[in-house]
Amino acid sequence: MEFYLYNTMTREKEPFRPRVEGHVGIYVCGPTVYSDAHLGHAKSAVAFDTLRRWLLHLGYRVRYVSNVTDVGHLTDDADQGEDKIQKRAKLERLEPMQVADKYFWRYFEDMAALNVLKPDITPRATGHIVEQIELTKELLKRGFAYEREGSVYFRARKWPEYGKLSGRRLEDQAAGARVGVREEKEDPRDWALWKRAEPEHLMRWPSPWGEGFPGWHIECTVMSLKYLGEGFDIHGGGIDLQFPHHEAEIAQAEAAGHAFARYWMHNNHVLLGGEKMAKSTGNFVTLRELFERVEPLVVRFYLLQSHYRSVTDFTDEGLKAARRGYFRLLDAYREVRRRLKAAPPGGHPELEAALAELRARFAEAMNDDLGTPEALAAFFTFLPVLNRALAGEVGADALAAVEAAFAELGEGVLGLFPRRVLEERLSGPALEGLLELVLELREEARRRRDFALADRVRDRLAELGVAVEDTAKGPRWKLVS
Amino acid sequence: MEFYLYNTMTREKEPFRPRVEGHVGIYVCGPTVYSDAHLGHAKSAVAFDTLRRWLLHLGYRVRYVSNVTDVGHLTDDADQGEDKIQKRAKLERLEPMQVADKYFWRYFEDMAALNVLKPDITPRATGHIVEQIELTKELLKRGFAYEREGSVYFRARKWPEYGKLSGRRLEDQAAGARVGVREEKEDPRDWALWKRAEPEHLMRWPSPWGEGFPGWHIECTVMSLKYLGEGFDIHGGGIDLQFPHHEAEIAQAEAAGHAFARYWMHNNHVLLGGEKMAKSTGNFVTLRELFERVEPLVVRFYLLQSHYRSVTDFTDEGLKAARRGYFRLLDAYREVRRRLKAAPPGGHPELEAALAELRARFAEAMNDDLGTPEALAAFFTFLPVLNRALAGEVGADALAAVEAAFAELGEGVLGLFPRRVLEERLSGPALEGLLELVLELREEARRRRDFALADRVRDRLAELGVAVEDTAKGPRWKLVS
Repeated sequence: MEFYLYNTMTREKEPFRPRVEGHVGIYVCGPTVYSDAHLGHAKSAVAFDTLRRWLLHLGYRVRYVSNVTDVGHLTDDADQGEDKIQKRAKLERLEPMQVADKYFWRYFEDMAALNVLKPDITPRATGHIVEQIELTKELLKRGFAYEREGSVYFRARKWPEYGKLSGRRLEDQAAGARVGVREEKEDPRDWALWKRAEPEHLMRWPSPWGEGFPGWHIECTVMSLKYLGEGFDIHGGGIDLQFPHHEAEIAQAEAAGHAFARYWMHNNHVLLGGEKMAKSTGNFVTLRELFERVEPLVVRFYLLQSHYRSVTDFTDEGLKAARRGYFRLLDAYREVRRRLKAAPPGGHPELEAALAELRARFAEAMNDDLGTPEALAAFFTFLPVLNRALAGEVGADALAAVEAAFAELGEGVLGLFPRRVLEERLSGPALEGLLELVLELREEARRRRDFALADRVRDRLAELGVAVEDTAKGPRWKLVS
Repeated sequence: MEFYLYNTMTREKEPFRPRVEGHVGIYVCGPTVYSDAHLGHAKSAVAFDTLRRWLLHLGYRVRYVSNVTDVGHLTDDADQGEDKIQKRAKLERLEPMQVADKYFWRYFEDMAALNVLKPDITPRATGHIVEQIELTKELLKRGFAYEREGSVYFRARKWPEYGKLSGRRLEDQAAGARVGVREEKEDPRDWALWKRAEPEHLMRWPSPWGEGFPGWHIECTVMSLKYLGEGFDIHGGGIDLQFPHHEAEIAQAEAAGHAFARYWMHNNHVLLGGEKMAKSTGNFVTLRELFERVEPLVVRFYLLQSHYRSVTDFTDEGLKAARRGYFRLLDAYREVRRRLKAAPPGGHPELEAALAELRARFAEAMNDDLGTPEALAAFFTFLPVLNRALAGEVGADALAAVEAAFAELGEGVLGLFPRRVLEERLSGPALEGLLELVLELREEARRRRDFALADRVRDRLAELGVAVEDTAKGPRWKLVS
């Protein structure tokens, strides 16, 4: 069975063939770290994290590179406006790098809550100024770029393939481009590789063209090639980035003589109230807000319920339904683990047949361009069979096989059941309530003068790490760790 | 009351006077990310984290910068040998930046377990190649550096103040310096600002002197000045770094015309088996190993029990004693929080007097160059008074005042009681055991035909989020979240 993925470049599902047998290099456009991540960021991160996990499951050795933009992303997403990070820094009265670092940590905290694996390499734009200057020099040398008053622009017209990924024709490309206050470009479609720093601009570096900072698009060309090499396998990102960001990446790489990514993958939007979720329009819900309402893994489950290339329509009802669905799976998984501890050896033919069916359907779905909705559906087809079996006797061999499937597919591939959710846990008020209940039952035994039972309760509590002390003011307990 | 700190530069305890009223800038030398952190790293991180927390407690606005070295630190800690990260990359068959990122994340995971706050800025050496080249150019221009076959060295003899921090005389400085295979230096005391990259060297950047990489010392000069500015307040690091690392930092900055750090603070070693704990000698215990044996906050407590300028002699007995001490404090704090929920209003004169004494002694200790052992001792003097009070009635006002002291001083300053340790928690087997005990007691009530009690138990469990289902195979429970 081959793994097919949809290549935006060819507009076809193609069988995945790695550049080097057994190895996959992936580059995914990461966040600009000037504010908290919202559900749209999560959709992208979860989609490509699941790609990575599926490739690992298939036995590939994966190098996963995903950047952090900490300079050069301007407020109009093109060549005009203020640097997003510098703007935020003024607001928070911080040094720009403090803003970048603050949201860097918060982003990766959110991603960890979603069980998104850390990238193997997380390059930052400010960490690759030298490389960006070098590529700009090369493009100037080859005539694909020109300098104007300390800025350097890519000459779009010189690169006839510009537009090949997004399918935009020349006239469409120009339509979206804005004209700056002081237009220096030969053509509105050109974009900055390097921008001169105006006096008020804080983030600046020396360059052959004076003090300035890199354009937004060039970091990804430079960092993907640096860490993954010529003709690397997969480039991913949000659908919004197709044009101009990814077109520019390709043009910059290829015009400088480099073979660039071989497969291009794009995740679709999240809708909120029927409109596209986006920071720029204010129509968004941050992950931190969501995590106050629902367990983070439920958010991951929600996102996996729609295909990465489909729009996810986010609603409160949908979130509640996702929560129910997620806990149906988790509860069954926990019950399997609990039963396994004391189960007698033996199989369970009906269950094992359903399990084989689950594995087959799961693999088929994932191999068809990461069909996570169908992969989840396979779990939900399996679930009633499992619950019926659990109502009776199930042998340890069958239980172990079920546990392995949950671990390999549910956690390993879909990332839904990290260890922290498997352990059942009571804390705070619920724990206190439970212990008080036990102590009341023990007092009740003492009132009935059943001291043997009362002592047994105390001994059992001690074994569980709960020390009970009978004081004049009644029993008092503490956890002994 | 003024805050005094010991300034290695003057060898005196000095009252701390910030450069800008109300603001403090701190730079602390962080890890070279090529392997897991050990207890020695933790001692440094906890010491300066506690400094930062104390300054925040005093009302300063703090900018805390701590770097990560991801290039240029060679195996002999000077100018010879292999890059530590590149060496590890060969071993793990990874790209060098993968090694750096892997241990970057692991380091900050360990620090989070120790409740060390994230730096405001975590600059990386590879992220500041341009700035390091610029400073090297400036030092060449001023005659404090010279080029030899693509490498650039600092001319130590030209900077007469070299040695002023560590107090090393000229002849002592040379004694430690090794002579390389192909000695290019004018003087063995000179050090590399920039090293040419030999063909097998992977981490390399173009420079005016050919392809190479920065020397180890220059990153800290460049990054501290970039993010904290001229004459910043405090520079910290391990005592080993005094010479040559910090001497070189100072010389590089001052020779280029910059005012450098005003206070220098150095933490002492950790001993293991009577010998200095160090990665290079193999005499160390990683934090991850320790965290398997003991709760991470106990390790923090252990470290705070000795002064940052004293040697910490690590022993198993000491660790056990620290664990007992830590839990004595934590248990009392938890009990205060529990009692507070239902306490009647009112004070407790004896307790409040002891609390005032605690606060006074604590502040005195911390203001005396971060006297954490005495600050902890103040808590342990307070503890018997608190426990005596808790054996009787304590009013809510007194309890709230105690809780505030634990929160502000115990957690806010010493970092010992993050929220995650305050919530009592049972999970896994202990939780299952406790629930089974309740269910057994309920079965026992049913046997006695006390169905009212049995039903009450089930209702109480439901309130606590535990659903009980009576099946043919006995009761079964699950957590309903």
